Amino acid sequence: MASLLRTAGRARSSLVRPAAQALRRQYASAAAAAVSSDAGEQPFFPDEPGQPIIKTQIPGPKSKAAIERLSKVTDTRSLNMMANYQQSYGNYIADLDGNVLLDVYAQIASIPVGYNNAALQLAATSPEMASAIINRPALGNFPQHDWADILETGILSVAPKGLNQVFTAQAGSDANELAYKAAFMWKRQQQRGGYDADFSEADINSSMNNAAPGAPDMSIMSFKKGFHGRLFGSLSTTRSKPIHKLDIPAFDWPQAPFPALKYPLSEFSAENAAEEKRCLEETERLIQEFHKPVAAVVVEPIQSEGGDNHASPAFFQGLRDITKKHDVLFIVDEVQTGVGATGKFWAHDHWNLSTPPDMVTFSKKAQTAGYYYGNDALRPNKPYRQFNTWMGDPARAILFRAIIQEIERLDLVNHTAATGDYLYSGLQRLAERYPKDIQNLRGQGQGTFIAWDTPRRDEILKNAKAHGVNIGGSGMEAVRLRPMLIFQKHHADLLLERLEAVLKQ
Amino acid sequence: MASLLRTAGRARSSLVRPAAQALRRQYASAAAAAVSSDAGEQPFFPDEPGQPIIKTQIPGPKSKAAIERLSKVTDTRSLNMMANYQQSYGNYIADLDGNVLLDVYAQIASIPVGYNNAALQLAATSPEMASAIINRPALGNFPQHDWADILETGILSVAPKGLNQVFTAQAGSDANELAYKAAFMWKRQQQRGGYDADFSEADINSSMNNAAPGAPDMSIMSFKKGFHGRLFGSLSTTRSKPIHKLDIPAFDWPQAPFPALKYPLSEFSAENAAEEKRCLEETERLIQEFHKPVAAVVVEPIQSEGGDNHASPAFFQGLRDITKKHDVLFIVDEVQTGVGATGKFWAHDHWNLSTPPDMVTFSKKAQTAGYYYGNDALRPNKPYRQFNTWMGDPARAILFRAIIQEIERLDLVNHTAATGDYLYSGLQRLAERYPKDIQNLRGQGQGTFIAWDTPRRDEILKNAKAHGVNIGGSGMEAVRLRPMLIFQKHHADLLLERLEAVLKQ
Repeated sequence: MASLLRTAGRARSSLVRPAAQALRRQYASAAAAAVSSDAGEQPFFPDEPGQPIIKTQIPGPKSKAAIERLSKVTDTRSLNMMANYQQSYGNYIADLDGNVLLDVYAQIASIPVGYNNAALQLAATSPEMASAIINRPALGNFPQHDWADILETGILSVAPKGLNQVFTAQAGSDANELAYKAAFMWKRQQQRGGYDADFSEADINSSMNNAAPGAPDMSIMSFKKGFHGRLFGSLSTTRSKPIHKLDIPAFDWPQAPFPALKYPLSEFSAENAAEEKRCLEETERLIQEFHKPVAAVVVEPIQSEGGDNHASPAFFQGLRDITKKHDVLFIVDEVQTGVGATGKFWAHDHWNLSTPPDMVTFSKKAQTAGYYYGNDALRPNKPYRQFNTWMGDPARAILFRAIIQEIERLDLVNHTAATGDYLYSGLQRLAERYPKDIQNLRGQGQGTFIAWDTPRRDEILKNAKAHGVNIGGSGMEAVRLRPMLIFQKHHADLLLERLEAVLKQ
Repeated sequence: MASLLRTAGRARSSLVRPAAQALRRQYASAAAAAVSSDAGEQPFFPDEPGQPIIKTQIPGPKSKAAIERLSKVTDTRSLNMMANYQQSYGNYIADLDGNVLLDVYAQIASIPVGYNNAALQLAATSPEMASAIINRPALGNFPQHDWADILETGILSVAPKGLNQVFTAQAGSDANELAYKAAFMWKRQQQRGGYDADFSEADINSSMNNAAPGAPDMSIMSFKKGFHGRLFGSLSTTRSKPIHKLDIPAFDWPQAPFPALKYPLSEFSAENAAEEKRCLEETERLIQEFHKPVAAVVVEPIQSEGGDNHASPAFFQGLRDITKKHDVLFIVDEVQTGVGATGKFWAHDHWNLSTPPDMVTFSKKAQTAGYYYGNDALRPNKPYRQFNTWMGDPARAILFRAIIQEIERLDLVNHTAATGDYLYSGLQRLAERYPKDIQNLRGQGQGTFIAWDTPRRDEILKNAKAHGVNIGGSGMEAVRLRPMLIFQKHHADLLLERLEAVLKQ
């Protein structure tokens, strides 16, 4: 099987543009060393560098000059690394000074199948893509004739179980907001007496004044430490950090407690079950008592930005039950967890829900965004209620289709489940040796979606860079690993080795 | 000059992919007829169809089948026409049944320089574009090394006078919301005592509960009938139609009256001046008295979605003065008016403001989005306050650069000013013959950004399609013309001729 995949990869690579070929040649000798040192694993990117290349401090002199120039025209204070994507390849990100790092952050968890992936390059240089770029349609009014085909062979081919329709968007924030809008419209329709009931005069007139009942005093419930985006509606459901929220007006919407589990899970099963029960009870109480009726509950399968906080399948099944019971929609935000990284295509596949979520939002690794739904009643009762000029982007939908094909060709979801187990075991061993710096290790059985806490998080992330590894953080003290789906065991070995060198410091 | 341009177009076209070449051949004979019938005008797209081609009712049988298929997976009730962009060219949009229409709606005013434009096709098939598509960066953390260059030679090369910085976004709605966020942060910093003043404990704690002072009870003021997008914050400033707002919770923010001018302007100058004065006084009163302090006023140069409502440069100068006086930011929403259609690159260039707007937002014809600003104080005082994963899209920024080059190569802003004057004169003549169906003609001296009112608007739009012209509406009874910047006098002649045929019905 592996040799077949390799052959397929080679056949495709012959069609690839010179830039990627040159990259492959450049890194080929290093890669050969890596392959031979590994126990028979075939690399997905045979010509990746065998290990990181560190030539200067980061940022080096060329990067510093480029940052200075960029900072004249836009704010660069959150800049982590000035990248050179022409020189980046597979799991490796390059900068302007010749440094090449193993990247387990992957553009905040958004690069799915490697920098300069040959199959994506083919899709990106197709006539179909060129047309999508230069003839961008207003999809709601003038969709392109093959839009159904692009959706069916792409976005919808991986639709979560039970959901067979999609509304496309631009990014995670607006995908969530559009799902919230659908929820409010649905809930108000219910209150009015159903799909065919018309708006009242009072609804119509008050809506234009941003007042109830037309602009209803209703709410979306989210969870403490949740993150759902940073536009005004999504930010009102985001409860990650003050720096995300300060000075921005917000809706008075409720937040439920999210379970604070204790690790290792096997030692605290009774306490954790009690904690989840407490959170579910409080969630139900808020739904019943909060002064603005709740139209939907939104939750991440793993709270990502807020610190990689997990809960059990039982907790999420409980949420599904409570929302059903109180006729509230259940929105699962899979913007960061979706598209394979947890070892299932959708993280909520781990839950074995009795009935599917009402809506599932996606973005990041999909490289396009939107929400899935399965219930016709979530189509608003009149046209132009859920509408905007572009309503998504066929170019990015075509790219997601190529990503899906690549995931299937290389069986990357199962691969990531296995690689994640391997990596997690290695981290467990490291945690035994460095218990202060690897606390609350979490993500077992969740693919490579792994994190842990350490009191010197920022220092570790910084030092990791000097050791050739690009890692991100989440919450206040979590190190979060977000490698791509093409991250393999030999990368895991390298990551563990470099990490140990950092922790020894 | 014209022949030079033509030569340039030809030289480029030799590099173009077979699809566009085939289109050109297909339409060439029709185009030859059109050129010969026109008084010496060189067509920008020499091989465009000479006139619309109507083969079936719209939608025809193939379109109907495609619509039925699409409606299974997404809501199609706002669908206007199922397009075939591979067969569309220049000013002409094709459908699946062989119908080819003169398009003066242009994807809700968002296609700038023609379908399958050869210069854009070159940009879209460049290695630089392929890399931008497959290696999409998290721009705030890991910008690509040439991002400053892409901005300086593209987006910033057309920055409004006085504004030299940009924050990029995905679409008009989030561009506006990001500008609002910058305004709130700026205003609260002022209240705290300036850029270096830190957040209070109360700010920090209350922000996490969506409550004041951390989530402040402040507002953005907009105008009655204004349209600024449909996400939660932008929708709170949108006052166009109930269908845009019904059932969506909104912030209690103020709306000022927008002048309701009488036409023809020359006959009502005293009344209109009084109306604008009244609106300015009410705006100032609201800024002083509204119960939630106003951080910014946002206004469209021409209210587009809300019915093509115009005001005079004096009105906007008055707004600038009032906002300055009360230390409120002045945001100009150029999402629909920007990028040349009014005969200036930015519509607010018509105003000759004493000081520039604080922020100008853009999207649509730019094919990318964001807000321009010129004041360092609008960079929030800490990193990660204005942040999201993608923070724009280099692929679309590269496309905007190609659009700008095409606009400059063909001098399309001046061209559109002249074509608009020509078209406006023709419509004046039509209005004399059909005074009931062309009322309140507006947009004189505003390029091709022209509209009028008619009591049978929807019927006219529908019949225009049968006559081979795709036109859009705005507000309750306006016909809005939004041709591309490559719309020429021979297209104007054709539009006037078809329009007259429709009005005669």
